[in-house]
Parts: sequence; C-alpha cells; structure tokens
Amino acid sequence: MRWIRFTKDGKTNYGILEGQQILEVAGDPFAGYERTARRHELDAVKIEIPLMPRTFYCAGLNYTAHVIEQAERRGIQPDIPTKPDIGYRAQNALIAHGESVVIPRDATEQVQYEGELVAVIGKQAKHLSEADALSCVLGYTIGNDVSERTWQRSDRTLWRAKNTDTFKPMGPWIETDVDLDALETIVRLNGKPTTQFRTNDMLFGVARFISAMTRYLTLYPGDVMWMGTDGVSPNLKSGDVVEVEITGIGTLRNPFVSESAGG
Amino acid sequence: MRWIRFTKDGKTNYGILEGQQILEVAGDPFAGYERTARRHELDAVKIEIPLMPRTFYCAGLNYTAHVIEQAERRGIQPDIPTKPDIGYRAQNALIAHGESVVIPRDATEQVQYEGELVAVIGKQAKHLSEADALSCVLGYTIGNDVSERTWQRSDRTLWRAKNTDTFKPMGPWIETDVDLDALETIVRLNGKPTTQFRTNDMLFGVARFISAMTRYLTLYPGDVMWMGTDGVSPNLKSGDVVEVEITGIGTLRNPFVSESAGG
Repeated sequence: MRWIRFTKDGKTNYGILEGQQILEVAGDPFAGYERTARRHELDAVKIEIPLMPRTFYCAGLNYTAHVIEQAERRGIQPDIPTKPDIGYRAQNALIAHGESVVIPRDATEQVQYEGELVAVIGKQAKHLSEADALSCVLGYTIGNDVSERTWQRSDRTLWRAKNTDTFKPMGPWIETDVDLDALETIVRLNGKPTTQFRTNDMLFGVARFISAMTRYLTLYPGDVMWMGTDGVSPNLKSGDVVEVEITGIGTLRNPFVSESAGG
Repeated sequence: MRWIRFTKDGKTNYGILEGQQILEVAGDPFAGYERTARRHELDAVKIEIPLMPRTFYCAGLNYTAHVIEQAERRGIQPDIPTKPDIGYRAQNALIAHGESVVIPRDATEQVQYEGELVAVIGKQAKHLSEADALSCVLGYTIGNDVSERTWQRSDRTLWRAKNTDTFKPMGPWIETDVDLDALETIVRLNGKPTTQFRTNDMLFGVARFISAMTRYLTLYPGDVMWMGTDGVSPNLKSGDVVEVEITGIGTLRNPFVSESAGG
C-alpha cells in the first residue's frame, strides 16, 4: 500500500495511491483512518512531505564504501563504525518531492546529494529483539540528505552542513510492502545515473538499528530513521535536478536553485 | 507571565500560573488562546512538559569553565568553540517536572546533571539580526541535560549518552518576563547546592545563537533551544533528587531511580 500526503484545493489530506489515482482518507495512517469516496488524479495534486517527523533519526555512516571515500577525500584514515550509533537531523530542513533545494549564497561548490532509504515508524516500540524489530515500521520512503561538505568539515555540528532549510527532501510517499533485500538505490543527476547501490548493503540494517535503539529509547509513531548512503556525489549547482529512485518504492525528484536566483 | 501545561481529571490543558493558582485557557500560547473561567490549585494538578518541541536544539558547549573541565576529565586539550554551532537532542527523552529519571541497568556510575536555560520559540523567524533576535522568543524554561559520560566518550553520537528515555527533564513552566543578565542557575543535589553560575555567562548568548542560526534555518513556534551548562556535576545514583533552579523562572525537580528498581 502507498500512503501519500497531498494538497488539493487548499486542503491537505492523506490518501492511498493506486496507480495514478489517490483514494482520499479521513484521518492518517498513524492514529487511524477511514476511506472516503473522494478520488484525485496524482498529477492534479501537490505532493507534501509524507509526515512531519516527531524525532528525526539518521544513521550517518552506514555503508563501507561511503565511509572510505569520505575519509579519502579528507585525507584521513577511514573509521568504520563498529556499532549502530544513531544520529539526528532537523525538521526545519524538510521539503517535499518537487520542491527546490535552495543553495545558500555563501555555500561552496561542494553541495552534494545522499540518496537514502527512510523507515517510518508506525507503532510505539521499546525493547524489540532484532527478529521483532520491523513490526513497528509502517513503511518506507526516500530521503536526500543534501550536504555542504566544507561546512561539514568546518563546523562542530551538522546544523548548517546538513540542516540548512530545504536540505532534506523526503518523499514522494510511504510504501508499506517492501522487501528490503530486493531494493536498489539509483541516483540520477539531470537524468543520468551517477550513483547506484544495493539499498540493503548497510553496515547495520533497519532491524539491527531498531533493536539497538529500543534498548534505551522508545520509538513513537511518526518517528523517521534515515538509513545512510553509499557511493559519492558530484558537486551540484543551480539548475541541476536530482532524482533518488529506490526500486519498489518510487522516485524523489528535486531541482536545485541558488539563493540569489530562487530564494 | 507563566505558561503551564498540566493534567487534571484526565484532561491536559495550558494555563496561566498566578501565584499558586492556574487560570485555565482554551488553546495554547503558540497558535492562540482564550481565558476560561476554570481555576485550579497548582498542587492539585499534574505538571506536564511545557511543550513537545518541534525541533529540539541544544548548544552543547557554551560555557568556558565547563569546556575546560570536561577536557581535563578526558585528559585532552580544551577546544573552546569559536562560533555558535547548534546541536540537537531527541524528543523521546523528555520528562516533566517531578517525573523520575531512570538510570539504565548497564549505565556506569558516571551519570551526571547539566542545568540549562531553555529558550522557547514563539514566532516563525528567519534572517534575524542579533538586535532583533529575541523577538521570536516566547519565554524561558529549565532543562536538565542528563548525561552518561562513559557512553558520551565511547559512542559516535550522543544518542544513548544524552537521549536515553527520561534523560531530558524540562519545565516546570515557561516564564515570559525574563532579564537574561539577572539570572542565576543553582543546582542542588538532595537539597545541597552543588553547582552555581551566572546563567548568561555563555560563550554565545541566546540572541547570538538565534541570529547565526536564522541565517540558514527557519525557527518555528514550538522549537526549543537548550543553552548549555557550566561547572561540573557529581555522579548521581538511584534515590538522588536533583533540583535545577533558575532565579526568576522556577525550579525543576526530578528524582533519579535505577531501571531495576523503577523502570
């Protein structure tokens, strides 16, 4: 099932996407819903972020090749994580499928994409075993963890490098029927594939993270976990369009504009 | 004015605290409110966290003495921040005034408090000058940034060291009439003062942080900014009670219990 959040005629609702048609619901997939008789064509609505997360978790370094490549770029020894230590991103930075990533005026040329699987939590959970961990997941969406690498190196935290307004595209919808092992992530820059990897080639998978996290913390409906990225990104500039496709889920597409031109 | 969020007879509402009496309102201080005729005695209600934050910001290192002392404990050179790089904490960890901090079974003896001023954002804000920065602040409350120092050193992120469930007491209310330069923070362990500092002896004050942050990000009503701590904390154990008083705001009081005993 595909959950989509959309705006039509000034009203924002959840719906179930079937092919190119949205079956509008009353309520939401977290607290409960009822189907309505209202139908909308997908191309006649504005797609919104699938949810405003409660806690916004992110696995920073979760693919071996990405860790090694980032270290080589910085001329340091790669430090492969040995356990799943989750990190955080910030709600202010979220934008929807189709909305523009605005590159700040003083950003360097090192603005890059990171295509990521996003797990959306549907049920409150604590002390889950790895075998039971996925029972709290409602479904999966796609994230682009846009990063300004110069600020990532120079700042004490990731507040500006990764959480500048518009730096966190998420969507286009939540797919509930997913075989994690079958997924492939393909990132395209202006239509040409530039990065491709098996989505589940993670150091620590979704279940392992959830099991480790819920030893100490409660996951709540509406929490999201961005699962990290593999490979490298070229530098992005105003006018570029980045598509993050995860097979079986969908494609998240966002143009990049410069602050002077578009923001 | 003091904004309090409370539960009485199973219903949670905002109210205005006048002396020991709560004037219940309909609505909230962010989206708007109307006074009602309902009155409650403060000691007859359950105090709740003043709000569930949207984005949960935290200035990790913001007092010179704290930075130096933490470095000395670790045997490393102190690295005094030269600019205001904001960090994050996690919503799952929040508890209200009076609720228990639960020390996990496998925590070491190095569980410590950090008494902090908390700025509560009341208005959407971007590109604020330092002179105008405080115009987006609704008021101030108090936070205890409870930390497990062993995990803080061993983990790649602060997820477990600082964001274990119950590790973020916040409250008891939001005070809107505050002279930042007059505030003093006093932390008491089992009734005895153990840490005391001028609250505004920050490396970067609230206005400086807001001005720097809003160059890149939008602050929204319901965001909170925890402003860091000074001094050192003794190690805490089950049965301890920690009070964080900030003069002119109030006192945040929480008992500590061990997971085996209380959680």
